[in-house]
Amino acid sequence: MLKLYHMWTSTCSKKVRLALAEKNLEWESRAMSTNPAPETLEPWYLKINPNAVVPSLDHDGRIIIESCVILEYLDDVFPDPPLRPADHVDRATMRVWLDRSESVVHRNINILSHNRFMATALGGMTLEQKLAMANRHPKVGMRTERLRRYREGVSAEEEQLAESLLAELMDEMEATLGTQSWLAGAGFSLADIAITPFIERFKVNRLAALIDWSKRPAVGDWWRRITARPSYEKGMALHMAAAPARC
Amino acid sequence: MLKLYHMWTSTCSKKVRLALAEKNLEWESRAMSTNPAPETLEPWYLKINPNAVVPSLDHDGRIIIESCVILEYLDDVFPDPPLRPADHVDRATMRVWLDRSESVVHRNINILSHNRFMATALGGMTLEQKLAMANRHPKVGMRTERLRRYREGVSAEEEQLAESLLAELMDEMEATLGTQSWLAGAGFSLADIAITPFIERFKVNRLAALIDWSKRPAVGDWWRRITARPSYEKGMALHMAAAPARC
Repeated sequence: MLKLYHMWTSTCSKKVRLALAEKNLEWESRAMSTNPAPETLEPWYLKINPNAVVPSLDHDGRIIIESCVILEYLDDVFPDPPLRPADHVDRATMRVWLDRSESVVHRNINILSHNRFMATALGGMTLEQKLAMANRHPKVGMRTERLRRYREGVSAEEEQLAESLLAELMDEMEATLGTQSWLAGAGFSLADIAITPFIERFKVNRLAALIDWSKRPAVGDWWRRITARPSYEKGMALHMAAAPARC
Repeated sequence: MLKLYHMWTSTCSKKVRLALAEKNLEWESRAMSTNPAPETLEPWYLKINPNAVVPSLDHDGRIIIESCVILEYLDDVFPDPPLRPADHVDRATMRVWLDRSESVVHRNINILSHNRFMATALGGMTLEQKLAMANRHPKVGMRTERLRRYREGVSAEEEQLAESLLAELMDEMEATLGTQSWLAGAGFSLADIAITPFIERFKVNRLAALIDWSKRPAVGDWWRRITARPSYEKGMALHMAAAPARC
């Protein structure tokens, strides 16, 4: 049985839900509350995911973490329909996009979301409460970053660099999709899945310059094909009223 | 035919050379000069690798980039001997370590190497020359980072965080290798290969606290087994006198 520990609004959770939908797999939802989801810091969840993040997949009691790793796991275990190119070089290209979805896109949209949304989402907490929550995070990287952001916010310089990095990536997408139908070749793949939730997040964050399809028509065409797939509605759906996760 | 664009001293190049050695594959060397290797900024190389970094693999004229992607490519195309676990969950674990080798280890050893080595390696250049070189980098992320480092160096706070993140990773290695022989289970895999060059780099950087095996005996035992493999000498070997890369 597949159980997914996730957050309805989380981009990385959406990646996994899109893949599950493409493969028509049944799964049980273990949904966390919205960001910053205090459940992720509870001892029962840290045993599942020591990084205190979602998603985590429980497959018959064995745990798989990291969204891109879960995507390849699902294709390893449930290869029909395949979501990785058969051609080895295209498959390598797919893996470059999987990596970029985290190292470039996730990283930078996270920077841009902080002042716009996270700061507001945490508006009901005092600075001391926020710092105490950050200090409970088990990983030094996330802990340090959150402490700094809660104290100082994200600077205009950081935001500007993040936007430039995302624009550069969108330019690479435009160049790629100008010569082939999908990011990793002629067929839809995990590469397309890994990028999809972030494009929707650009819209939510009103990053107009990134989603002006008159400037990047090949990406616009790809986006229309992505959103027309039945998996889009299923994988991206929000069920905010769902019960919070339990152990 | 396999041609590897690489640098003898580069950690990510060593990952690929270790895998090539484990698989007993013949390959042609296209070696760049040492860091910051101005050849990587030349138009002929940017066509091969638009990120202006090594390694890049040319397999019968098709190009594969990104060290961890090259590792999986080599195992896809030359599966004997296999360097990925057959068990799907172990394979997922392997991919988590591949990711960490870049997102945690490479990223942070790079921070720690700057003041210690890179600043000295570039000692013959004026600040203006260094900034001009950085400005020629085609990617905004690397360009911005280099400009800042050449101007300001790396701060003590950044170095301290980088050391903490590496120590945290070494603790995870110790916990993992306390219960199993190799990073991704009972068998040697790409996970072990991806971490190996960085442990040697810790030694070169004299990061004594990270390689004190009395504190992390399971990692020490793993390291003795790693360095005893015939691939270690072959993959990690330096041939600094090699001819510079040509198109």
